[in-house]
Amino acid sequence: MITRYDSTNRLTSMLTANGFAFLSGLTPKDRSGGVKEQTADVLSQIDTYLAKAGTDKSRILVANIWLKDIESFGEMNAAWDAWVAEGAAPARATVESRLASPDILVEIQVQALL
Amino acid sequence: MITRYDSTNRLTSMLTANGFAFLSGLTPKDRSGGVKEQTADVLSQIDTYLAKAGTDKSRILVANIWLKDIESFGEMNAAWDAWVAEGAAPARATVESRLASPDILVEIQVQALL
Amino acid sequence: MITRYDSTNRLTSMLTANGFAFLSGLTPKDRSGGVKEQTADVLSQIDTYLAKAGTDKSRILVANIWLKDIESFGEMNAAWDAWVAEGAAPARATVESRLASPDILVEIQVQALL
Repeated sequence: MITRYDSTNRLTSMLTANGFAFLSGLTPKDRSGGVKEQTADVLSQIDTYLAKAGTDKSRILVANIWLKDIESFGEMNAAWDAWVAEGAAPARATVESRLASPDILVEIQVQALL
Repeated sequence: MITRYDSTNRLTSMLTANGFAFLSGLTPKDRSGGVKEQTADVLSQIDTYLAKAGTDKSRILVANIWLKDIESFGEMNAAWDAWVAEGAAPARATVESRLASPDILVEIQVQALL
Repeated sequence: MITRYDSTNRLTSMLTANGFAFLSGLTPKDRSGGVKEQTADVLSQIDTYLAKAGTDKSRILVANIWLKDIESFGEMNAAWDAWVAEGAAPARATVESRLASPDILVEIQVQALL
């Protein structure tokens, strides 16, 4: 009833259950860039996970975005706006929080419909 | 299967799917007041959205509240406690985060049952 | 259709609906210890709530963790890793936020499958 994708002993990157996909807060693999590049990196990972579950960004219900520095809101949105599915934007909340490592500028967590 | 309310190219204020309503993190329209006034403003917006989906505050499952300053916890609760449906309080988590604009003192995101 | 566990006029610690359990952000009852002890305290409360709903930690879908100080990430994980169900880790996001009282070092909110 629960299917897990990319599990460790600590967390699972994506689970599906009851018609939904639940993702972990994803952070950029390449942390050398700025917020725009890091956001695009995370959004690309989200695309890959959703595809594994047979769904896609047009079916994301809600996204939670944490920025290390809320002043980078516009820079994050530049990557976000270029990515979001036309006519199918999710609900969203964006706030500032320090993240697990100082070089992580953005973390994004989504829930999608299968 | 997904119904969207108040969409832009960036985000959708409320989506319904699989028996649930998912709302964006809502911020006050009138940012001139203190935390109590801003909280009441956001809660009123939540009422309006839930009504559009045919549900109401007594069916909210979970609320996430971000305060610009956690010291305003009591002031936020004054507005919250006056609003919450009797005998039908949701699950809730309240933490501090800097928000998208310095004049936003509170942001609230809810998920409700249709 | 909604069942509530431990409600006050402000919030409900756990609700079940549509096959899911939604918990509030839980904080440690004993706030005298460090992050590891406080995390174990919260995880124990989560176990107790999930049992009341007839489910358990192996069916948690997603966990959101707020740390007062993100530098305590490793200490939190020491308690988390010892607790998580083998082969059944949830999706997770961990960020830093100041919490409702200065002696609260960690807050955890989960959603589980019944």
